[in-house]
Amino acid sequence: MSLLTDLQSLLGPSHVLTGADAEPYEQDWRRRYRGRALAVVRPGSTDEVAAVVRACLAHGAPIVPQGGNTGLCGGATPDDRGDAVIVSTARLNRVRAIDTDNDTMTVEAGCVLQAVQEAAEQAGRLFPLSLAAEGSCTIGGNLATNAGGTQVLRYGNARELVLGLEVVTADGEVWHGLRGLRKDNTGYDLRDLYVGSEGTLGIITAATLKLFPLPVASCTALLTLDSIDDAVELLSRARAGFGASLTGFELMAGDCLQAVIKLFPQQRLPFEGDATRSPWFALLELSDSESETHARERFEAVLGAAIEDGLVTDAAIAANLAQSQAIWHLRESIPLAEAELGKAVKHDVSIPISSIARFVHTTNAALQASFPGVRNVIFGHLGDGNLHYNVARAPGQTEADLLALQPGVYDIVHRSVMDFAGSISAEHGVGQLKRDELPRYKSEIELNLMKRIKHALDPNGLMNPGKVLQASA
Amino acid sequence: MSLLTDLQSLLGPSHVLTGADAEPYEQDWRRRYRGRALAVVRPGSTDEVAAVVRACLAHGAPIVPQGGNTGLCGGATPDDRGDAVIVSTARLNRVRAIDTDNDTMTVEAGCVLQAVQEAAEQAGRLFPLSLAAEGSCTIGGNLATNAGGTQVLRYGNARELVLGLEVVTADGEVWHGLRGLRKDNTGYDLRDLYVGSEGTLGIITAATLKLFPLPVASCTALLTLDSIDDAVELLSRARAGFGASLTGFELMAGDCLQAVIKLFPQQRLPFEGDATRSPWFALLELSDSESETHARERFEAVLGAAIEDGLVTDAAIAANLAQSQAIWHLRESIPLAEAELGKAVKHDVSIPISSIARFVHTTNAALQASFPGVRNVIFGHLGDGNLHYNVARAPGQTEADLLALQPGVYDIVHRSVMDFAGSISAEHGVGQLKRDELPRYKSEIELNLMKRIKHALDPNGLMNPGKVLQASA
Repeated sequence: MSLLTDLQSLLGPSHVLTGADAEPYEQDWRRRYRGRALAVVRPGSTDEVAAVVRACLAHGAPIVPQGGNTGLCGGATPDDRGDAVIVSTARLNRVRAIDTDNDTMTVEAGCVLQAVQEAAEQAGRLFPLSLAAEGSCTIGGNLATNAGGTQVLRYGNARELVLGLEVVTADGEVWHGLRGLRKDNTGYDLRDLYVGSEGTLGIITAATLKLFPLPVASCTALLTLDSIDDAVELLSRARAGFGASLTGFELMAGDCLQAVIKLFPQQRLPFEGDATRSPWFALLELSDSESETHARERFEAVLGAAIEDGLVTDAAIAANLAQSQAIWHLRESIPLAEAELGKAVKHDVSIPISSIARFVHTTNAALQASFPGVRNVIFGHLGDGNLHYNVARAPGQTEADLLALQPGVYDIVHRSVMDFAGSISAEHGVGQLKRDELPRYKSEIELNLMKRIKHALDPNGLMNPGKVLQASA
Repeated sequence: MSLLTDLQSLLGPSHVLTGADAEPYEQDWRRRYRGRALAVVRPGSTDEVAAVVRACLAHGAPIVPQGGNTGLCGGATPDDRGDAVIVSTARLNRVRAIDTDNDTMTVEAGCVLQAVQEAAEQAGRLFPLSLAAEGSCTIGGNLATNAGGTQVLRYGNARELVLGLEVVTADGEVWHGLRGLRKDNTGYDLRDLYVGSEGTLGIITAATLKLFPLPVASCTALLTLDSIDDAVELLSRARAGFGASLTGFELMAGDCLQAVIKLFPQQRLPFEGDATRSPWFALLELSDSESETHARERFEAVLGAAIEDGLVTDAAIAANLAQSQAIWHLRESIPLAEAELGKAVKHDVSIPISSIARFVHTTNAALQASFPGVRNVIFGHLGDGNLHYNVARAPGQTEADLLALQPGVYDIVHRSVMDFAGSISAEHGVGQLKRDELPRYKSEIELNLMKRIKHALDPNGLMNPGKVLQASA
């Protein structure tokens, strides 16, 4: 029997998509990557996922797991050989359990992140993972890429938010690792190996997640600053002054917000005069377990001192939820507004916070020396040392001009990242996009250890081949 | 040349110990495990560790890494064949760097935990890992066993406190993974694989650790409670009321503290009358980033309500640092005081917090049914769901009587742990002690994944053989 027939008999024909039905799954949402698949399957249970994997194994067909298809590195798109089976987790979308006494919830991989957040909130708890794609990305994909987002500063990456996993291994077996334990030292950390492996070692089908108390109050402010050095100093003061209550510290170059208000005229900056043209903006969020009043008093104490010392040039503290949302909305509109500046060469880098200002100065200078006039579009999660250090075309350049410069820009930025002991992929993963860059920035020893693990857990090399590591003999 | 000669020429004869000099390293500090080694080596640098590993590889000699030798599961003791080389990290004891802007410090594996804490504090930062053996255990051992301790509730286990590692692999190569990044998604999580692998995959030689702001103030209280159910309810309220400021929640059965004050008459309970004979005590610690006054007000608000509602029967809030230390000292004296009750059958278990009260009731009943009169000596980190559920002899029983019951006691407790979806080793690891128990409590699929990883990263099987996994073909 053919694999297609096998899959149809396992799942029913309506859950095996081919031809035009399969097309939306064969390319990523930004249309940067396009491949071809033998079929897209939509299993409805963990056992069905395992059966699909065994069928693919029997036929030697590559398997490409796919969640919400919102990845930025082509990790969920097949290659163009047309022999792969895309395993969509869309139907694995149940919240299996919420345990408020243990502060955990167990959800299936295909649950949309926003649905997970909402289920937690309905139970009076916070699930803090939060990122731009939350309305369509899935928790399985978040875990497979170890997603970051805006709350990492306080709550950590996706990896730090998961206690247990259920995984269909590359052998088509089910590892039942759904533990709700804060402490478990009974062997190797398989959980953290599957988290961040981008579907190359197995398919995450469910997870037991950590929950937190809902903050009683929160405060948001948009600040203007003269330099990134001042922003780093402010971060240091905010960490000392707010402790674990500091839940957001986002940095944005002035150009980013100018582009936002140009593209979305209904949005506006909460400042007048010079402050609207500030070279840097910072968004701070404080979450409080006491009261609105307490949150505001603490906020004003730390910010007041920073203004007095000239570290912050102007500050707009949100007076209510609507103003707070408007400030966050400015931040979240940056990726869309970037399109205004034309396609940019994008980077997702992290740098030790102590070096981040020097990294920006040095890299800016190196770029101007090689490519005069290109524009920096820098924003990111300063609290985590994570910058989206993007580069847009110079005035007068066309998109094609910039595209031609792209390899040279990558090279300068990524070399600079390495000089400052940073990472060339802070939160987006490797996928196809950075697979061939890794050997330039990781030691042979580290790559060799990764390859050995890949071979040990996926000896047939059928799990998402060509992602993270080069598919090789 | 013999291996011994090789090692002497690599390190100099004074750093290769044999005979009587080697003996202290050949047994664990509690004298439960005793083995024999060909030699104990004390390399002075990472490169020397790598050279030692290569020499051992060339001679086919097993390698047993050892830090402060304070483990509780025999993980750092060789077997009795006498062919192993113990690699002591004692001379790898430099603090390599402290970066207060990045809130990280890089230390060598042989640094004593307390020295790491003190170096952080001198730099105005907190390194929160804290456990009874901190005066002699090493950070390398803490990471190799993923140590827990008393601050896990707020700051996580050792795994959550490390950003990067330097590791000598089983091939005798050095993986330079000392990254000071909060976000790095460039491949498989090797770091968390080495953390908790108990020296069976390689030797951790240095680590980049996370630092935190020092709390401005803290509050400690000892409370009396009628039941473990009340303790779980109090924990829930404390988490909601204190958020991330709750840094300690320890539970102790009344018997534990009675034993402490019997053994150490200079210690006393800060209560009068009935409260001194309470069946349960809880130690709460609140760390505050504002002020003493603020900490105390919050503490009293939550505890006041708990007393009013009858959840807490009496409360002693420390009025100063000395009183706070006295309360912690009561808690820390429990392991020593246990000796008063004779050798106990010890367990280090974790249970989802929502099931922990039922676990205790059910297990107590099952033990009494099989072994009437045995006494529970229960204490632990309730905030993490981690109990040291220990069992002492019944009145009239000898130590030998209890020893004869040990297999039966283990069996009842560990089966109950499994019934409640818990772990049979929450924070102490597996070592030799629980190696042969694992196959009873872990699926074949999980053990098989672990064995594949072991074989992939240590193909010669020379790294700490017979620990965690059974040494097999």
